[in-house]
Amino acid sequence: MATNGSPELLIVMGAAATAEQTDHVVVRLQEAGVHARVATGRGATVIGVIGDRELLATLPLEGYPGVDQVVPILKPYKLVARELVPDPTVIDVRGRQIGESAFGLIAGPCSVEYREQTLETARAVAAAGATMLRGGAFKPRTSPYTFQGLGLEALEILREAGDETGLPVVTELMDPRHVEQVVEATDVIQIGARNSQNFLLLSEVGRAAKPVLLKRGPSTSVEELLMAAEYVAKEGNEQIILCERGIRTFETATRYTLDLGAVAVLKQETHLPVIVDPSHAAGRRDLVLPLARAAVAVGADGIIVETHPQPEQALSDGPQQIPTSEFAQFAAEVSAIVEVMGKHIG
Amino acid sequence: MATNGSPELLIVMGAAATAEQTDHVVVRLQEAGVHARVATGRGATVIGVIGDRELLATLPLEGYPGVDQVVPILKPYKLVARELVPDPTVIDVRGRQIGESAFGLIAGPCSVEYREQTLETARAVAAAGATMLRGGAFKPRTSPYTFQGLGLEALEILREAGDETGLPVVTELMDPRHVEQVVEATDVIQIGARNSQNFLLLSEVGRAAKPVLLKRGPSTSVEELLMAAEYVAKEGNEQIILCERGIRTFETATRYTLDLGAVAVLKQETHLPVIVDPSHAAGRRDLVLPLARAAVAVGADGIIVETHPQPEQALSDGPQQIPTSEFAQFAAEVSAIVEVMGKHIG
Amino acid sequence: MATNGSPELLIVMGAAATAEQTDHVVVRLQEAGVHARVATGRGATVIGVIGDRELLATLPLEGYPGVDQVVPILKPYKLVARELVPDPTVIDVRGRQIGESAFGLIAGPCSVEYREQTLETARAVAAAGATMLRGGAFKPRTSPYTFQGLGLEALEILREAGDETGLPVVTELMDPRHVEQVVEATDVIQIGARNSQNFLLLSEVGRAAKPVLLKRGPSTSVEELLMAAEYVAKEGNEQIILCERGIRTFETATRYTLDLGAVAVLKQETHLPVIVDPSHAAGRRDLVLPLARAAVAVGADGIIVETHPQPEQALSDGPQQIPTSEFAQFAAEVSAIVEVMGKHIG
Amino acid sequence: MATNGSPELLIVMGAAATAEQTDHVVVRLQEAGVHARVATGRGATVIGVIGDRELLATLPLEGYPGVDQVVPILKPYKLVARELVPDPTVIDVRGRQIGESAFGLIAGPCSVEYREQTLETARAVAAAGATMLRGGAFKPRTSPYTFQGLGLEALEILREAGDETGLPVVTELMDPRHVEQVVEATDVIQIGARNSQNFLLLSEVGRAAKPVLLKRGPSTSVEELLMAAEYVAKEGNEQIILCERGIRTFETATRYTLDLGAVAVLKQETHLPVIVDPSHAAGRRDLVLPLARAAVAVGADGIIVETHPQPEQALSDGPQQIPTSEFAQFAAEVSAIVEVMGKHIG
Repeated sequence: MATNGSPELLIVMGAAATAEQTDHVVVRLQEAGVHARVATGRGATVIGVIGDRELLATLPLEGYPGVDQVVPILKPYKLVARELVPDPTVIDVRGRQIGESAFGLIAGPCSVEYREQTLETARAVAAAGATMLRGGAFKPRTSPYTFQGLGLEALEILREAGDETGLPVVTELMDPRHVEQVVEATDVIQIGARNSQNFLLLSEVGRAAKPVLLKRGPSTSVEELLMAAEYVAKEGNEQIILCERGIRTFETATRYTLDLGAVAVLKQETHLPVIVDPSHAAGRRDLVLPLARAAVAVGADGIIVETHPQPEQALSDGPQQIPTSEFAQFAAEVSAIVEVMGKHIG
Repeated sequence: MATNGSPELLIVMGAAATAEQTDHVVVRLQEAGVHARVATGRGATVIGVIGDRELLATLPLEGYPGVDQVVPILKPYKLVARELVPDPTVIDVRGRQIGESAFGLIAGPCSVEYREQTLETARAVAAAGATMLRGGAFKPRTSPYTFQGLGLEALEILREAGDETGLPVVTELMDPRHVEQVVEATDVIQIGARNSQNFLLLSEVGRAAKPVLLKRGPSTSVEELLMAAEYVAKEGNEQIILCERGIRTFETATRYTLDLGAVAVLKQETHLPVIVDPSHAAGRRDLVLPLARAAVAVGADGIIVETHPQPEQALSDGPQQIPTSEFAQFAAEVSAIVEVMGKHIG
Repeated sequence: MATNGSPELLIVMGAAATAEQTDHVVVRLQEAGVHARVATGRGATVIGVIGDRELLATLPLEGYPGVDQVVPILKPYKLVARELVPDPTVIDVRGRQIGESAFGLIAGPCSVEYREQTLETARAVAAAGATMLRGGAFKPRTSPYTFQGLGLEALEILREAGDETGLPVVTELMDPRHVEQVVEATDVIQIGARNSQNFLLLSEVGRAAKPVLLKRGPSTSVEELLMAAEYVAKEGNEQIILCERGIRTFETATRYTLDLGAVAVLKQETHLPVIVDPSHAAGRRDLVLPLARAAVAVGADGIIVETHPQPEQALSDGPQQIPTSEFAQFAAEVSAIVEVMGKHIG
Repeated sequence: MATNGSPELLIVMGAAATAEQTDHVVVRLQEAGVHARVATGRGATVIGVIGDRELLATLPLEGYPGVDQVVPILKPYKLVARELVPDPTVIDVRGRQIGESAFGLIAGPCSVEYREQTLETARAVAAAGATMLRGGAFKPRTSPYTFQGLGLEALEILREAGDETGLPVVTELMDPRHVEQVVEATDVIQIGARNSQNFLLLSEVGRAAKPVLLKRGPSTSVEELLMAAEYVAKEGNEQIILCERGIRTFETATRYTLDLGAVAVLKQETHLPVIVDPSHAAGRRDLVLPLARAAVAVGADGIIVETHPQPEQALSDGPQQIPTSEFAQFAAEVSAIVEVMGKHIG
């Protein structure tokens, strides 16, 4: 490993690896068109590999005889990495901003259930200072026996609510066959947690002309979330908002474990804005405010919260929705922390 | 709670719940059209609820003031439950069986890369006694910079390999827009781990006339897997093979943690056959045989394994693919356990 | 289940349970000296059990033939439950308080390495407004080849540092044979994360006359943490501070996943103060401030943070220790959130 | 990095690291007395470090400015590694063996409750071909309100049962103050799952003259388990049996998730025998046989199983204990797999 070319990755041979095995790896690398430099000595043999990153990604190096570890030196994502784009991305949606000093307060019902419920909620959150309106048209539900969302009809209701209140609208896209309608009707396209690694859908929204709100899946790692964002960015759409919403762990006292450490890591790794969904992580209304405040304090660029005029009659996620009547108080408490963090509601 | 009607679910009020809160819950339940019976005393108040299960599923009971726990008495799945169908389902695919005493040995390449690789593999696994051929046409890959599969072209290659060897073909469906082509080309439609809760896709294959191989997602619980199967069954397709392939845990010594306890639980909870994918859980070739043997011994109805003529040149998952030349030996070692378990390769 | 006695627990029989199996359970319960009431009907049979909670805890009810679920109605902890003690416990240690509106700022080195390092750190944190001094005498280290702590000698150094600065001292007890020395030398006895369920040690400190700082283990659930506190309280010592310090999950971007949702839940479940250790969860210095701020905002009663005059030369946990020279700035940033939360540094 | 000395570890500097930061790391390494070689170029700078492994373990390299990754090349354990001791260790306890082709069948009650229960169980398991007797004297229980074990009295009962049946006895040590009594009374000293990283206790049994059965903790990684064994071996005792007993994951269908992949990995990483405890992982009797069979098939060197004359009256873990009357049948079913694996009950 000389000074005129540092490696893209390192291959560490096992202690029992033979010289033949090392040679075999080197030959395979050369055949594949990449450079390899070997350092052998007591203890272990290390091969530094220099070459095209995408080419290297295709080689099943871990499976070569004698190989113990393959250590990537470069991060597997590029477009979303802060290394390449040091300045934070600020996303502007019809005049409302998320990123840098602009904090996004996104609120609305879990599901669009009927016109009045959505309009009433939209008016309440707009009055309380929310910056965007959320609402689900298609609902991914664990049970086939529960409410699955109003579907395309909901998009019109959301559009009306957005137009009346002036709030940009966020809604989830689930079906690649609905891309056109959802892109047309909404201002921000949400990719839900269960589709966090639906690479098909990610590529589709990567070709859309609207910002994407990409939720982390319950078992998606921080690196995988950034790779999912890379799928979107690779198609040309770099208007991406990442969203932490809780991961699945052994703990059952909350529905998911909100991983605010991941938010702190993401703020260092990527230039994209990162928001938090405290509602789905908590699964219960009384935990939403403390988690929302913690999200602000950890440095998130926004939160997305569920609220409903009558949570007890909500067709989905009732237990975690904040009554619309309490939303102004909620927003005020969150704002107090936003201010201490030197930000403003965008 | 009298003896003339036992509850579908129990609501346990918190120790500090007031009589008004209990009354409020009862009134809400009555308004919703279900029956409620209250048992109050020292310690706690319990409400037994009798009514339509699907109706109950829509009520956000956990969020009502004073409610501490909601305990479902009935399982949330019906069609796939062993309670209703005590006899095990045996799935027959072009004369090959999976279920009861028939053990399915499904093998083939991770991805269909080119015609010769697939044909060569198909011949080898057929010769070694495999009962079905697997192969990926569309590959969900974490990185957008890696091989994404041959796509529709692969379906033809698989069809040819299946026809030549007489092996039924298993391949993954990822895009709802490909349902027709995949259903036509394949014998068993695989729903991959990342789509385990893609309810849209589950409903689509529920309307297809081909058996479905449904993989458990890396953070899908046993109950959620059964609910996913229920989505398929509810649309009319009860030809479902469940597949355990490892869950995501803190342990990084294996790629995923193969959860064979879940297989033992599933064999009790459902009449559907349950198979195991040791390749993806292991992530490395040398662990595939021990995990495959363990899968047989825990009572699985089959395994699905990746094999490749030259794993070092595989375009995906090379480290975990068994060389085709070693597959016959692998199959023999697995068969020895199948026999002790009183089963036969189906 | 009549109204003159609600159950301590409910036993739900499986759908296939026979009348004989139900009778068998009832007979066993009666033999054990508890009351049982049966509700049978369509769907399921439920047995309500009324009796001594400690007696019930000894019966292996889940294993009785035909039993499907055992649902505890009462929480398994008593002394630490908010139900019984609605007012928050405020712990006073030599005039410094933790609980209610008093926020504890505990800081100091990971390990006591030598006299000057500890004294220098103590002076710095005292000057910056810390309310207690932490420092490890015995270090539980994953590797036997790393620094294991100064041992008993460290206790004297800590005592001196505490006396000079007036700060109460917190240090960890690991060995039941050291109880006397540690209790004498320190003001608060810490039970470390790896001993969170060392019931032997918990009982020992339950008999000590000093407050206990009880850390949650990396795989300890919220309920288990409360049960561990109950072990301490049962012996007579109710001066317990609970501490969240991260749980083990699949995510490797941070050393542990800080579970701030658990803090919010604990604040509802128990009257005991709850603090957060952001240093161990993060594993890296640059994440400590964001996590500390989030801990305050979620409602914690304090934080415990590691700081070292020269972290690069620290004998343990160097990467996560904040340089002492930056501690005053750190404390100021944390204090800003403490104030918004309507609390003061205790 | 030349060929005359390969590194013990590699330090990868971040893409934004300055030359000064790299120099600083090198100077610090040199001050610490280890060698450092730098490879700089496009993309990244890598520092290869050569020096004493134990010395290196004390340096907080991850926290040095500019450092992105620290990659250990050598495994952190030595004495227990297969690299150094390629032949499998066979442990002989009073003529019964575990390791290589000898499969250990360890059985007995969860807790020693009273003399007759223990003797009756011992006779039954001896008659069915068990090779060792297990039984708990001290019980680590989640709740302080449950049976905590008979204590020292149980040791005598176990000794009597062992002497009568000729079975070596395995019992758990929890308290360092009991080392002498437990070592004297038992043939194999068990370190329980909750003490898997109680380094104090590990060092104590490392100085004992009896073999140690070391259980993996519910959140202990494979590498940490090997490090825990290293603590024992470092003190001179290399008679160590490792035991997988389930890890804590999000899945609640089983009490713990039995990680048989870890067994396969351990068989490669260490020369020590590895056994499996299916009882604690399952938490329910009906899953013990399938998991035990799977354990044999994955290549474990033994199993440790709980059995009780009347599980319904067991004072601990009743739901998972196999009735003694069914143990012979259980043993026969397990033996069938042992035989196929080319082993014999030791």
